[in-house]
This record gives sequence, structure tokens and C-alpha cells, in this order.
Amino acid sequence: MNIRFYNARILTMKEPIEIRNGELWVKDKEIVYVGDGSDKDEVLRTMGPSYSFERELDCKGNVLMPGFKDAHTHTAMTLMRSHADDMPLNDWLNQQIFPIEANMGYEEVYQFTKLGVLEYLTSGITAAMDMYLDPQAIFDAFTECGFRNVQVSGINKFGPTLEVMEERYNKFNGVNDLSSYMLGFHAEYTCEKELLQGISEMAHKYKAPVYTHGSETKAEVQGCIDRYGMTPTEFCDSLGLFDFGGGIYHGCHVTQKDMDIFLNRGLYEVTNPGSNTKLASGIAPVSLYRKRGIPIAIGTDGPASNNALDFFREMFLVTGLAKLRDGDAASTDALEVLKMATVNGAKCMHLNDCETLSVGQKADLIMIDMHQPNMQPIHNIPKNIVYSGSKQNVKLTMINGKILYEDGEFFVGCDVEKLYETCSKIIDKMGVRG
Amino acid sequence: MNIRFYNARILTMKEPIEIRNGELWVKDKEIVYVGDGSDKDEVLRTMGPSYSFERELDCKGNVLMPGFKDAHTHTAMTLMRSHADDMPLNDWLNQQIFPIEANMGYEEVYQFTKLGVLEYLTSGITAAMDMYLDPQAIFDAFTECGFRNVQVSGINKFGPTLEVMEERYNKFNGVNDLSSYMLGFHAEYTCEKELLQGISEMAHKYKAPVYTHGSETKAEVQGCIDRYGMTPTEFCDSLGLFDFGGGIYHGCHVTQKDMDIFLNRGLYEVTNPGSNTKLASGIAPVSLYRKRGIPIAIGTDGPASNNALDFFREMFLVTGLAKLRDGDAASTDALEVLKMATVNGAKCMHLNDCETLSVGQKADLIMIDMHQPNMQPIHNIPKNIVYSGSKQNVKLTMINGKILYEDGEFFVGCDVEKLYETCSKIIDKMGVRG
Repeated sequence: MNIRFYNARILTMKEPIEIRNGELWVKDKEIVYVGDGSDKDEVLRTMGPSYSFERELDCKGNVLMPGFKDAHTHTAMTLMRSHADDMPLNDWLNQQIFPIEANMGYEEVYQFTKLGVLEYLTSGITAAMDMYLDPQAIFDAFTECGFRNVQVSGINKFGPTLEVMEERYNKFNGVNDLSSYMLGFHAEYTCEKELLQGISEMAHKYKAPVYTHGSETKAEVQGCIDRYGMTPTEFCDSLGLFDFGGGIYHGCHVTQKDMDIFLNRGLYEVTNPGSNTKLASGIAPVSLYRKRGIPIAIGTDGPASNNALDFFREMFLVTGLAKLRDGDAASTDALEVLKMATVNGAKCMHLNDCETLSVGQKADLIMIDMHQPNMQPIHNIPKNIVYSGSKQNVKLTMINGKILYEDGEFFVGCDVEKLYETCSKIIDKMGVRG
Repeated sequence: MNIRFYNARILTMKEPIEIRNGELWVKDKEIVYVGDGSDKDEVLRTMGPSYSFERELDCKGNVLMPGFKDAHTHTAMTLMRSHADDMPLNDWLNQQIFPIEANMGYEEVYQFTKLGVLEYLTSGITAAMDMYLDPQAIFDAFTECGFRNVQVSGINKFGPTLEVMEERYNKFNGVNDLSSYMLGFHAEYTCEKELLQGISEMAHKYKAPVYTHGSETKAEVQGCIDRYGMTPTEFCDSLGLFDFGGGIYHGCHVTQKDMDIFLNRGLYEVTNPGSNTKLASGIAPVSLYRKRGIPIAIGTDGPASNNALDFFREMFLVTGLAKLRDGDAASTDALEVLKMATVNGAKCMHLNDCETLSVGQKADLIMIDMHQPNMQPIHNIPKNIVYSGSKQNVKLTMINGKILYEDGEFFVGCDVEKLYETCSKIIDKMGVRG
């Protein structure tokens, strides 16, 4: 669709960061103009005679910015939201999560992934890096909704095989421009050494980055040290797993030597402050990573541990917990957090054409409603968004040039109330209500 | 107004906590019926022939619950939102806040209090305990909007005099049923001993509770120990300030002996996790207070330090930070947090007829939209609200029987866009933009 947004404050997330009275044009899936409008006639001529706007949208001074990139999640865990709370990570996984997951098949994953998509859209999230069960169900749910997704293998000693992972890697890459699939594994503590060696070989075969949970809890790190005499990051690196980059989800408890590895391998730290807070796992040393020049992306983690897919919560926690951890109110300012939530997330997920609002980038963008009391007065837009913003301010979410959410309405090709009912019936059938 | 809410899930916040398919009637300012509707004909007969509903509102399964009570705030600091960030408390106060406040008069406080009221309403907050400049401006702004408010004196060595505080105490109490005024002072570190003695005498004269900031930072506690050989709580108590109860705002850094005083004097701990996080002041020991049986209420603090007036953020932080501090994911569960946010807040603010949804209580209530993806599936309503809720879920806010906010629209007797403009002009005139 060809859309013209005008009267917008544009937070491009590249220099110049902010255009005060800007406009932005979308042609099909791409951004074809971003600027103050002074050169628009000239640009319009270069677009050719067939180009015309199907919709012209007065932004009324609202902010346009790149959508948030959720760099770590387990979307269909919406099924367990508010079901398994107030337990430490280990008991939570073993007593609550794993037994329920054993009963989840295509239908459950498909429907609850769709439910998650709706929540992403309300939060201005335009892409998710999802590690979960049944990749076909995930692929179908995301693709049907028009939602940009990067799946990551969560292989572990309970399955699937390396052959199946490779098959999926080849099957789900290159199918459409919304979806991709990355190599990865659940975590060191759920994988035998031989399996990890096999994943490393595959990473080398495809020259592919590898993603995994790592250093989420102190106990996990100690377990790995007990087993191998190395931290999880050191051990995985010793197997060559990160020779083509990738990312570590959580990374709360890391050493300087771990950080050397992050730096040398180009690994992303993907911080998940909501989940780490709610499961009492710890606070990631965000400013230490930053001081070392290690790029940080942000993830919500799954909605059974968080329990929301709310990037405003995550962004406030990234800066707030860094300030608390450092004992320094000046730590990790708002613009830095916005970069993590947009540009860094896109880079981490290898979505290199979804980083900023600029010509040639995919039209994955959101409109932030500034006509709300929590955004007034407008002193500083990044601070307004990170320090006082909320999902309530997401007025529009566009992915790949399509508006999927606007003024509280969803345009994802399914009846939202029916989806709620379907999901409700599933949990009743599975006996996991309450 | 006489309103019937039906098809509601009612979170009464007293036994029974939840009514699944309930209805609630409001007559003028009060709740006159709460139940499952089975006895409604009978109750209707007792209401007399003149009673009829002016509006019947189908809640469609949404939740009705008591509004949140913001037990510590400085509302008109909306003026400085996003202006003075990323600084430690002391520099923030002395270099940024105090110089701006020196230039704030009636008009500034009045307009920015109104702006804060709008934000409270979007967050489901139905009453605020406000400590700020110019009580007449605050009284006027709140009262004109129909917002329930408890003002607290913030007297300190820079003003006003004890006589003025007493005058205000008598002037702003008993004027209308929305407003009251409490004795209080800014903090031990901004008051001379003689002034505190004077406040104590007044507390004894009126048998009145006293409220103050206390034990917010480690440095503040140490300063008091250096001055008087006692913690702020001990020192204030030694002057008899808390002989009639009251509350301490923040209370991050307290001793067992301080907690003895809280318990003996019936003091409320008013926790402000958003502000304490953003200013890096520390984490209040919420579960220690709870173990000692000390009641906890929740405040947002002012929007220059938080920077939002968002009770969903505060509620998640209360439980999340407790879990992190205790290293225990089971710490401080959702229902407990909801009690702090409603019943305890009301008790702390002496709003004894605004505690729960039950007959005879004031109709200060909110409707939580469950037809949003972040509330689905509905496993457990308190957990849904505290762990995944957001301002986006506030569908309606009613105070004193009047709907002041519904489906994004405000009914507070002023033009919202004009208010934004007025506020914007004020900060330009004051030169505090950006």
C-alpha cells in the first residue's frame, strides 16, 4: 500500500535522530521518503507517474519511529500466562512448564502464537525472535498475521535431532520476506556435549550465527563450571559455537572473560529484565556490557515468565535496573535504550532492512500518540517514550508496509474475540485453567 | 447518577474477593448493591419507588474493582517530566527541581495538577495523596475535575510557617467530600528540630497523623545519624511526631528498630518503586515490612522522578523488586500487591469509605478491559492485572459516582487539547523546555 504520513515527529533512529515536522512515504513494503517535506515535489517526480498515495494520514504531531524488535521470546507461552507464577526458575520449568508443553501440539502453538501477535502489535513490537515448539505452527501463525518473525531452534537433549534442525533451517529460510530461521539451542544445561558439538559443526557448515539462553541464573553458571570447569559462555565458545556470532539470551551472570568472548565473537547480549525480575534471576550488568562495547538487544522472554509482551515495561526496566544496579541515576539513558529496542534488536536478528526509518528500509514502524497526558508536556521525546510511555500510546503498528493495528483495532485476518474463545477452550481442554 | 453495571467480574477486595458474574449498582455517590444478582429484585424494592437507573452498562465480562489509591505523589511535577532526568536525588533536587519550583505559582500548579489528573484517570487511580506547592491551586484543580484528593503539608525550613500550615489544615478539611488535608513535612533533612517540634505539637493538638518522606536514600539516613545519633524514623518518633500514626514515603533504608516504630505507631510504609528505581535510591524491603505486619501502600511519587503516574508500572515493580531483593520468585504475590494498591492505600489516606466494592462505600471504581490480548487467557485475575496489566486496560474510571474517563475520553469539565497547549505555553514561558 502506498501511504503518506505527514505532520509527524519522526524519530529515525539514525542521524538526524529527530525530524520535527516530517513526512514519511511508504511504497508497497518499503520506505521511499523520509524528510521535512521541502524536497517532496522533486522526489515525487522521480517516483514515476504510476505512483500515488492510497492513503494520506495526518499524524497530528504524533511520533513515527521504527517498531520495537523483541529479540527473545517464546510467544505461544501466552497459554501459561498467570498459570505458573511465583516460583523459582527451576521449579517453574520442571513442575509447571515442561509438563504442560508436553501436551502442546500444532493447534495449541498456532492459536497461542496468534494471541501473542495481537499483544506484540498493541505494544509496538514489529518483529519477534521466537524460540518455541512446532516451527510449522509458529511459521503459519506469524505469516498469516503478516508479522515479521525470526525463529530460533531450541534443540536440546529431549529433541529434535540435528537432522530435523537442519531440515527446518532449510525449510523456513527464504520462503517469504517475513520469516527466517536461525540455528540455536535451548541452553547448555539441557544439551549433552555431543549435541552442542553437532550444532557447532552445523554453524560452521552454514557459516551461521547461534543463539541460546545463557547465564540466566547463578545456579546455571555454577552447574556448568561444575561439569566442565568453564562458564556456559566459555564452554560453548570452546566448542566453536559462536564462531559466526549470534546472541545470548539473559546474560545476567557473566565474567569479564565471558565479555571478552561476546566482544571477540560479535555476540549480542539480549537482556530480558521483566522475566529476570519476575523469576528473581538477577539483573544483567547492562552498563558493563556497554562499557565493553558489546551490543545489547532487548527481549520480553515468554509470557509465562514475564508475564507481558510489553516493550514499554522492558525499556523502563532496562534503564531502571541499570540505575539501581549501578547506584547511579545517570546510568543508561533513554535514547540508548531506544537504540537497543530498535536498531540493535534488528541487527541481532539479522533484520538489516528493518533498523531505522530511512529510504530503502522496510516499512516496519509505529505511531506513538503524544496526545495523551503521560506524553505531555513534550520536553524530550526519547525520555517521554522510555520513562513515561505505555502501550496506551501505541496508535498504529505497520509491518512490511501493512497497517496491522490502528486505534485499538487489529487487521490480521482473524476475529479477535473468536481467537480468545478458541484459546480459552484449549486451556479448559488441557486442564490448565487457573 | 444511578448506574447499573452488569455482566461484570467483580474484584471486591473483601471476602468474597471475586464475584464471577456480578452486578453493581451506584446511587448518586455510593455503592448500593454488589452481588451475583440473585437477590436484586428484593433489593430493588427496598430502594424505594423513586430509584431507577439512568444508565445500565453491560460490562461484557470485564472486571470492576476499587480504583487505585496513589498514596504519595507531587502531581504538578508533570511540569518537569522528562526535563530533569538521569541525575542522583541530591543534584536532581538542588540543581533542577528547586530552581524551577521557585518560579511556580498558582497558575502553574493549577494547570499541571489538572494534567496529572488526566493521567491518574487513564491509570485507574481514583485518589491521590499530594504533597506540593500552593494548596489552593491543588484544591481548585482537583475539585473542579471531581478527583478525590488528600493534600499533605510539605512544610520545611524554607516555608511556610506553622501558622500557615494550621490555617490550611482548618481551611481545606471539611469543605467538600472529595478533599482533605493532612499534617506533614517534607523530610527531616529539610526541617530544623524546632520546626519538627512545632509540627509534633500540632499533631497532638489535633490528634492527627503525620506524613513525611523518610529513609529514601542511604545518604539521608546517614545525615540524620550524624546530626542526631538516630535514624530519621527514630529521631522523628523521639519528638512525638508519629503519636497519632501517619506514614513514611519511600522507607527504602530502614532498621529493625525503625520497623518497631512503624508497628508501634501504626505508621504506613508508602513504597515508591518507580521513583526509587529511576533515581537509584534503592529497593524498599517490602517483604520485611510485611513479615513484621506493617501495612504497605503504594505511591507513584512525582512525575519528575518516576516519570509516569502509572499504577500498573508501580504494581509490577512492587512485586518484581521484592522478588529480586529477596532472590525469591515466590515473594509478594499479585493479590497482596492489589491490596496495597487499593485497601491499604485508602486506609493510609484515611479514605475509609473508599476501600472496597461493597454496599455503603463510595463509588470510586474502575473497569479493567479483559478483551485485550494481554489479559487473555483468563487464568487468574489478580495475576493478570498485576503481572501483565497496563494502562491500556483501563476502560472506565469513576469517582464519587461520576464517570470521569471512559473509552479514552475524559469528562472532567475541561478541553484536554487546550490544557496541553496551556501547559506547553507555560514551560516555554518559564524557559524549562527540553
